[in-house]
Amino acid sequence: MGRIAILGGTGPEGLGLGLRLALSGEEVVVGSRQAQRATDAAERARARLVAAGCRTPFSGAENRAAVQGADVVVIATPFAGVAELLPPLAPDLADRLVLDVVNPLIRVNKQFTIEHVPDGSAAETIQRLLPRSQVVSAFKNESAEELNAIEHPVDGDVVVCSDHPDARARVLALVERIPRYRPVDAGPLVNARSLEAITALLLNINRRHRVVTSIRILGLKDGKGSQEAASD
Amino acid sequence: MGRIAILGGTGPEGLGLGLRLALSGEEVVVGSRQAQRATDAAERARARLVAAGCRTPFSGAENRAAVQGADVVVIATPFAGVAELLPPLAPDLADRLVLDVVNPLIRVNKQFTIEHVPDGSAAETIQRLLPRSQVVSAFKNESAEELNAIEHPVDGDVVVCSDHPDARARVLALVERIPRYRPVDAGPLVNARSLEAITALLLNINRRHRVVTSIRILGLKDGKGSQEAASD
Repeated sequence: MGRIAILGGTGPEGLGLGLRLALSGEEVVVGSRQAQRATDAAERARARLVAAGCRTPFSGAENRAAVQGADVVVIATPFAGVAELLPPLAPDLADRLVLDVVNPLIRVNKQFTIEHVPDGSAAETIQRLLPRSQVVSAFKNESAEELNAIEHPVDGDVVVCSDHPDARARVLALVERIPRYRPVDAGPLVNARSLEAITALLLNINRRHRVVTSIRILGLKDGKGSQEAASD
Repeated sequence: MGRIAILGGTGPEGLGLGLRLALSGEEVVVGSRQAQRATDAAERARARLVAAGCRTPFSGAENRAAVQGADVVVIATPFAGVAELLPPLAPDLADRLVLDVVNPLIRVNKQFTIEHVPDGSAAETIQRLLPRSQVVSAFKNESAEELNAIEHPVDGDVVVCSDHPDARARVLALVERIPRYRPVDAGPLVNARSLEAITALLLNINRRHRVVTSIRILGLKDGKGSQEAASD
């Protein structure tokens, strides 16, 4: 894919995804509001990657600098931050693939749930804030803990949705490069509403049963789930 | 469990669930607003069960009559109907196990999604309308088509949630009796928000890939997923 910038890439979800993408051969730049924090996180990540035998470039930069020259920009910040972060970046991100992994989670009586988002989902909010970008949602249900534990393989289905079929196809191909993740094409971006809700359920099951879970869609016809289908 | 009444039991989801419950040995009464429709549906269902070698009692009745003497009452009506149907039944359903399988689905641009429910989910609305009942949500993601195809086994995880732990345990045990379904205890009822959203996703994947899907939670430690856990 070329270079992948991860906004909020010093948080556990963004950093874990960055590690997995680097292991599959992608050049990664983790972004943060503070350049120093980003370069520190990148340095630690690079040490782990080198120990795992991976020498893919992995660097850190302030968010705005990170997106320069990136082919894909991942949004991995807390949902509360996107309304402030994204509008100034919209011109830079025009006509680019923006990969949204955000979950708008809140806790009510110790249970995770999704907060009510007027747009319907964090994904739809991000697409509204970046109207000229090709927003694709994926990796919403993948546990940060599992992503970061690079000594272990991941497992599960990565459900992908977007209103931009070409961009969606690119992300399906990207998922395919991470061993044992199976990409599943769920079509339009509105499906992100369900993906975000699934994350809350998995986190509650994790806490209840003291495990780290992921999901599998049973009943897909081929082994991959990523075939292009008729209708959009 | 004794006798199970299914309100809205002549619709495909309710009837399919009734068939599976009858096959696992439960006595079923399908309810409808019209007694004749219920008895007709029950007669056809009974013929199918007998052909499959099952002679469990399976009858039909008007909704209000169906709940009399039932040990479990399943709500399988469209969500739009519950605000009218349930309040008059609330005294009858007090202190009883009410099994909610309702999904508040709408379609937007050919995609299924869940409608915005002020209570957070259909499940929470039903619990609010039946404050003295023990509402348990389950079977929300199980395809009506698959439930009705009794010549084939079902497959997948049936995620169960409720604010009433004893009632939840009873439903987990009920799920266990249906071959190949695995019960998964998701804890409190708020998790129904996620279950309802999952249904929309599965329906969209089904339509897109021309398949019938279900879900599996990967990473649970035992084979069943239904063990009681520490926190509620």
